[in-house]
Amino acid sequence: MPEKLTEEQKEFFMREALYEARNAKIIGEVPIGCVVVQNGEIIGRGHNIREHVQDATLHAEILAIQEACAAVHSWRLVDAQLFVTLEPCPMCSGAIINSRIPEVYFGAFDPKAGTVGSIGNLLTDERFNHQAKVESGLLLDEAKDLLQSFFREVRRKRKEKKRSQG
Amino acid sequence: MPEKLTEEQKEFFMREALYEARNAKIIGEVPIGCVVVQNGEIIGRGHNIREHVQDATLHAEILAIQEACAAVHSWRLVDAQLFVTLEPCPMCSGAIINSRIPEVYFGAFDPKAGTVGSIGNLLTDERFNHQAKVESGLLLDEAKDLLQSFFREVRRKRKEKKRSQG
Repeated sequence: MPEKLTEEQKEFFMREALYEARNAKIIGEVPIGCVVVQNGEIIGRGHNIREHVQDATLHAEILAIQEACAAVHSWRLVDAQLFVTLEPCPMCSGAIINSRIPEVYFGAFDPKAGTVGSIGNLLTDERFNHQAKVESGLLLDEAKDLLQSFFREVRRKRKEKKRSQG
Repeated sequence: MPEKLTEEQKEFFMREALYEARNAKIIGEVPIGCVVVQNGEIIGRGHNIREHVQDATLHAEILAIQEACAAVHSWRLVDAQLFVTLEPCPMCSGAIINSRIPEVYFGAFDPKAGTVGSIGNLLTDERFNHQAKVESGLLLDEAKDLLQSFFREVRRKRKEKKRSQG
C-alpha cells in the first residue's frame, strides 16, 4: 500500500507532471506529462513523445511506468501513485492495471479517449484483477490551459500556413 | 487499407506469432507472441518479456507495434494487420487503437483480462476514434495448448518445490 499523501504533496507531484507536460510542448508534442511516486519520491517521469519517435505507444504514462519499474526492479508497482495531467487512454489505463498501481491522480478529463470516467472506467471495473483509487481534477485549470493553448497555437499556425500558400 | 489476406496467409502469420510465443516460453515467460504485417510482410515481432525485464508494459503486442512503427517511420499503422496468440488486454487493445491498426487476428480468448470480446470490446467501441476488424479463434487449439501446458508445468514445479521443502 502506498503512503498517504497530504494535499500539499498531491499538488507538488501534479506540478511535476505539469512540468513534464511543458517539456512535451517545447518539442511540439501534445503537452501531457506524468510522474510515478513511491514513498514520497518520484521514481518515474515521462512526457508524450509520439511524434518525435513516431511511435504510437510512447505516451507519458507508459514512459513513466517503465522508468518506475526499472527503478524498483519490479513490474509490480503496488506501493506507487501515478500523477498525469490528462485522463489516461485505454492503453495507459491498461498499463496502470498491468503494473498494479493502486492510486491515480489526473488533471483534465479527455472526453474523446479517456477511460477513467469519460468512456467507461477501466480502473474501477471489478471484472479485472486490479482496481485503482482515482482522484480527478487536480490542478485542473493549469492542465486544461496548457492543452487548450497548445491546440489554439496549432490551429493558428495551420491557418497561417494556408494563407501563405493561398 | 491493408491488403486482403488469404486463409493460407492468415495461418502462416499466426504460426509466426506462435513461434514468438514459444520464444517466450523458452525463457520462462507466459507464452504469448505477436507479429505485425504489412503488404504481406512481417514488419514487427514481439513476445512477452515482462518477467525478464521486470516491466509491466512489455507485452508481445507492445513490442511488435513499436518495431512496426520503427520499420515504417510512422506511429500510424493504417495498412497493417496484427496477429497475436492471445486476446489483447486493455493496454494492448489501447495500443492497437493508438496505432490505428485496422485488422486484428487472435487465437485464444482471455476471460480474465481480454478486452476484445471477453470483458467488453475496446476495438469495436464506436466512442473511440478508431475501430478494428477482429477475427478470433485462429489456430485456437495450438495457442490454447501452449498456454495450458505452460501453466500445468508451472503448477507441477510449484508442487515439487513445496514437496522438497516439506
